[in-house]
Amino acid sequence: MSSTAILLIDCPDRKGLVAAVANLLYAHGANIIHADQHQDPEAGLFFMRVEWTLEGFELPLFRAEFETLAAGLAMNWQLELSTEAPSVAIFVSQQLHCLVDLLHRQRSGELNCNIAAVISNHEDGRAIAEFQGAPFHLIPVAEVGKAEAERRQFQLLDAAGVQLVVLARYMQILSPAFVRRYPGRIINVHHSFLPAFIGAKPYHQAFQRGVKLIGSTSHYVTEVLDDGPIIEQDVMRISHRDQVRDLAEKGRDLERIVLSRAVRWHLEHRILRYGNKTVVFD
Amino acid sequence: MSSTAILLIDCPDRKGLVAAVANLLYAHGANIIHADQHQDPEAGLFFMRVEWTLEGFELPLFRAEFETLAAGLAMNWQLELSTEAPSVAIFVSQQLHCLVDLLHRQRSGELNCNIAAVISNHEDGRAIAEFQGAPFHLIPVAEVGKAEAERRQFQLLDAAGVQLVVLARYMQILSPAFVRRYPGRIINVHHSFLPAFIGAKPYHQAFQRGVKLIGSTSHYVTEVLDDGPIIEQDVMRISHRDQVRDLAEKGRDLERIVLSRAVRWHLEHRILRYGNKTVVFD
Amino acid sequence: MSSTAILLIDCPDRKGLVAAVANLLYAHGANIIHADQHQDPEAGLFFMRVEWTLEGFELPLFRAEFETLAAGLAMNWQLELSTEAPSVAIFVSQQLHCLVDLLHRQRSGELNCNIAAVISNHEDGRAIAEFQGAPFHLIPVAEVGKAEAERRQFQLLDAAGVQLVVLARYMQILSPAFVRRYPGRIINVHHSFLPAFIGAKPYHQAFQRGVKLIGSTSHYVTEVLDDGPIIEQDVMRISHRDQVRDLAEKGRDLERIVLSRAVRWHLEHRILRYGNKTVVFD
Amino acid sequence: MSSTAILLIDCPDRKGLVAAVANLLYAHGANIIHADQHQDPEAGLFFMRVEWTLEGFELPLFRAEFETLAAGLAMNWQLELSTEAPSVAIFVSQQLHCLVDLLHRQRSGELNCNIAAVISNHEDGRAIAEFQGAPFHLIPVAEVGKAEAERRQFQLLDAAGVQLVVLARYMQILSPAFVRRYPGRIINVHHSFLPAFIGAKPYHQAFQRGVKLIGSTSHYVTEVLDDGPIIEQDVMRISHRDQVRDLAEKGRDLERIVLSRAVRWHLEHRILRYGNKTVVFD
Repeated sequence: MSSTAILLIDCPDRKGLVAAVANLLYAHGANIIHADQHQDPEAGLFFMRVEWTLEGFELPLFRAEFETLAAGLAMNWQLELSTEAPSVAIFVSQQLHCLVDLLHRQRSGELNCNIAAVISNHEDGRAIAEFQGAPFHLIPVAEVGKAEAERRQFQLLDAAGVQLVVLARYMQILSPAFVRRYPGRIINVHHSFLPAFIGAKPYHQAFQRGVKLIGSTSHYVTEVLDDGPIIEQDVMRISHRDQVRDLAEKGRDLERIVLSRAVRWHLEHRILRYGNKTVVFD
Repeated sequence: MSSTAILLIDCPDRKGLVAAVANLLYAHGANIIHADQHQDPEAGLFFMRVEWTLEGFELPLFRAEFETLAAGLAMNWQLELSTEAPSVAIFVSQQLHCLVDLLHRQRSGELNCNIAAVISNHEDGRAIAEFQGAPFHLIPVAEVGKAEAERRQFQLLDAAGVQLVVLARYMQILSPAFVRRYPGRIINVHHSFLPAFIGAKPYHQAFQRGVKLIGSTSHYVTEVLDDGPIIEQDVMRISHRDQVRDLAEKGRDLERIVLSRAVRWHLEHRILRYGNKTVVFD
Repeated sequence: MSSTAILLIDCPDRKGLVAAVANLLYAHGANIIHADQHQDPEAGLFFMRVEWTLEGFELPLFRAEFETLAAGLAMNWQLELSTEAPSVAIFVSQQLHCLVDLLHRQRSGELNCNIAAVISNHEDGRAIAEFQGAPFHLIPVAEVGKAEAERRQFQLLDAAGVQLVVLARYMQILSPAFVRRYPGRIINVHHSFLPAFIGAKPYHQAFQRGVKLIGSTSHYVTEVLDDGPIIEQDVMRISHRDQVRDLAEKGRDLERIVLSRAVRWHLEHRILRYGNKTVVFD
Repeated sequence: MSSTAILLIDCPDRKGLVAAVANLLYAHGANIIHADQHQDPEAGLFFMRVEWTLEGFELPLFRAEFETLAAGLAMNWQLELSTEAPSVAIFVSQQLHCLVDLLHRQRSGELNCNIAAVISNHEDGRAIAEFQGAPFHLIPVAEVGKAEAERRQFQLLDAAGVQLVVLARYMQILSPAFVRRYPGRIINVHHSFLPAFIGAKPYHQAFQRGVKLIGSTSHYVTEVLDDGPIIEQDVMRISHRDQVRDLAEKGRDLERIVLSRAVRWHLEHRILRYGNKTVVFD
C-alpha cells in the first residue's frame, strides 16, 4: 500500500464542481485511485471523496491552491493522509467482545490507528488491553461521580491526543459537554436496529415485542440519546426458540461487525455527516 | 401430496404432554410426517404442531378421544385438514404488487386457498383480479363512509364464508369492530421493520432517519395500530444514493415476500399466537 | 423525472480522464445528477458512468466533441437517453413466476422498456402476456427443431427491433450463433449461486450436497453455459426440513429478484462488462 | 442453567417412535425442556433430539431401559450431559482471527468446552493462546514432515483426551489416517460458499469469477477435500470495488461466525450427520 491523500468535500451543489476539483488534481499530476461523488437533490448538496497516490505529488502546493478554490465554492473539506494513524480511545464496561475484536483488528493491520487508551469503569478489560499493548485506565464512574470521571477522561484523552472515541459497549451515558468536545468523533454501538428499541435493555424490548430479526447499529453520538447519524446496521434472524439470553449472545456477532465497520470507515475517511445522516463512500 | 391432518396445541406446560399426544396418535395408527414442540420456560407454556397422513386413519374416532384428552390437560387446539382450502379475501388499494403476487402464487399452487373476494376502495385492481378469476368488489370508502363500507365488506365476507382477510397494501384503517370480528384472522403488511416507523409514510420516516437497511413486517392485526403479533420480517440494504422513491421501489420486493410467507404459513397452520407474539413452526 | 443522458465509458486508465470528461460536460453546461468512476488497478482500466439532465443541453454538439475526445483516449463508450425505452423480448417456458413479475414491473413503470415479444416453447405464458398487452409467440422447439426455432425467433426479434433478450426461466440452451448475435444483450437467471451447481437441476444438486443456503444468479449469456459475467446474486437460508420441492418454491423468490434487478440495471445503463465480469454502478 | 441430559437418535422411520421415547422419559419423570424431531421421507429416516433437566432424574436407570428400547428399534444414539465440557484442540496457522474469536468465546462462557491444546505449524498463535490459558504446541510440519507431525499431534491429542478437533484456518491438509481417527469430530472452515471454489485460494477464485457475494462454510472433515457434511454457511455482499485483499478481509468476519456456530452446535449436541449431510436442531 503506497501512501495516499484523501480529500473529502461537501458544499452546495452547482455545475462544474467535479471539473474544478479534477482539473486541479490533474494540473498537479495526481494519480487518482478512487473518486466518488454524490448529489442530494432534495438538500441541494454535493459530496465528494477522492483519493490519489502521494508519490511525486507536492501536497503543500496543492493544498494552497485548493484552499482558494474551496473558499470560492463554499466547500467544507478535509485533506487526510493514509500515513497518519489517528489516536483512538476505546471506552468499555464489562462486556469485552467488541474490545477484543477491535484490538485484534488493529493488531492485524485492519484498522489504521493507534489505540492510545482503553478506559473503563471496571477492571475486566485490563488484561486483554495490556496483552495487546494498549494502556488501560480504570475510572470508576459510580465511585468518583460522573463529573470527576469525565475530568479524568478528558485529561487522558488530551494527553494521548485522542482524535476518535469508540464506545465499545460502554454502559454509561456521556454528558452533553463530553459530546460537544468531540463533534462527529464519538462512535457508539447500540444493540438494536435503531430507531427501534431506543434506550436501555434493547434485547429485552425486542424479546417482548416478538420481532423475527434482531439488529445492531453503529452511529455518531450526539446530545440526543441513540439519535445520532447512523453509520452502519445489520440484522440476524431469530425464532420463537430464542430467549433474551440467546438474543444477547447472537447479537454480539452483530455488534462486533457494525462497530468495527464504522470505526474502519471513519479511519479511512469514508464518512461524511450532513444533517443527521451519513454518506458512506465505499 | 397425500392429504394430511394437522393438530395445533397450546396449553400450560407439564410433564407427559408429548407422550400423551404421541400415544393417542400411535394408538390410532397415525403415520406422523412432521412433529414439532416448543416450551416457553418463562410463560410456562407448551406448544405443539403435529402432522400425519390421513390414509387409513379414522379421524372422527381420533377426534372424539382427543377431545377428552385435551379437556383434561386444558389444551387450546385446532385440528385442520390439508384438503380444506380456506376462503380468503384480499383487500387492496392502488399499489398492486402484493395482489399480483398473491394471485399468481395461489394460481400456481403455492397457496392452498380459494381467493373468494378482492375488495378495494379503487378500481385499479379489478383487471388483474378478474383475469386471475377472483371476484372483484369496489367499495369506495371515501365516498360511502367507513361505517357503510364495512357493512358492505361484512356482507361480502359473510357471503363468501371468508376465513382469512389479507391486507395487501390496503391504505385504510379497519375499525375495532372489524378487527374483533376476525381475531387472529387478519394479516397485514407494514412497510417498515416494526416497531420502527409505526404509522403513516414509513419510507419517508426511514429516509429522514438515515437508516442503512429498510424492512418490511407482516403481522396479525389487533386493535392497536401496527402493534399486532409479528409473523415475518425481512430487510434490504440501502445507501445514501437512495431517495424516498428508491426506498419505496426496493421495499416492494420485501413486502411481497414477507406478506406471502405469512399468508402461506397461516394457511399451512404453522402459526400459534400467544400474548402478542407468534410461534412459527417451520 | 426529467429526461437525462447517460454516458458509459471504459478505457485504459491514465491521469486526467475525470477532468477531461468533466470539463467537456461543464463547457456544455451539463447539470450532472450522478457521476461514478471505478479504477481496476490490476487490469489498468478506468470505468465511468455520468448522468445529466437534458433540459437546455445541446446533445448533438456535445456528442461531436466527445467523439473526438474519446478517440484520442481509446475509450469505449455509449451515450444513452432515459427517454428511449428499448425493446425487450422475454423468453419463457412453463414456469411463469419471472414472466409475471417482469410484466408487472414494466406495467407499473419500474422497468423503462417496451415488452415487444414474449416467446415460448409452451402455451402456458400466453394468457398473462396477452393480458398485460405483450405479443405472445409460440415456437415449439421440440417440434420444429432448434435451427428452425431460432430462424423464427430471429425473425420476430428483428421485426420488433429487440435490443435485449431476457431468459426468464427458459429451459432451452441457445445456440452459439444466437449468443453471438446479441453480445452482452442476453440476460439469464440461473437458479443457483454460480459457480456452484452449473447445468441442469441445480436445486436437486443443492439438496444432494446439503447446503444451508440456496442462491440465484443473473448473468449475461456467453457461449459457455452458465459462465457469463455475473450481474447479481442473492441467497436464502434453508434447513434440513426443506425437500427439493421446498428449495424450488423458496428459490422462486430469489429468481424474481435477481433477474428483475439485472434487467432494470441493464435498462438504466448501470452495467459495464469487462473480461468476464461486470461493474454495476449504483 | 441447571444441568441437562441430551439424547440424540437416528434410526429407520416407523410408527410409534416419538411415543416410545416420550413414554420412557415420562415414566422416569423427565422434565423435557426441548424436543425436536425430523423425518426424511426420501431416506426413510427418523431423527430426534430431546433435552431434559437432571434434577431428581435417575439417569443410570433410564439409560439401562433405553438401551433395550434402542436395540429393538435399530437406533443409533448418544446420551450426553451438559455438565461435561469436552476437550477441544484448535489447529491454526498464521491467520489468527478464528483462534482469537474461539478463545474469547470459550472464556466468556459461550462455548461449553475445555481448550486442551492449540497446535500450530507457526509460532504466531502462541502469545494469544497462552494469554487465554490454552497450552500451545508448535509442530513445524514443513520441517519434520507430515508423518512425524501427525505422530506428535496424535500424542498430544491422546494425552489431552481431545474429543473435537477444530481447524481454525489451518493451512495443512490432514492425512486420511488422521481423518479416520476422528470421524465426525473434525470441524473445518473453508473460506468460500461450498461447493463453489473448492481447494486453494478461494478468494482469488471468487475474484476471478466476478461473484457478487462471498461466502464461508463450516463442515465436518472427510477424506475428500472440502466435501464433508456442511454445518453452516453464510455470505456477504461485495462489489466491483473489492480487490482480492478486500475479499479476504471481509471474509474473515464470515469465517469467524460460521466456524464458531459450528463448534457451538457440535458442543451442544445439536448436529446429526447422515450420509453427507447434517441435521442441525435449533
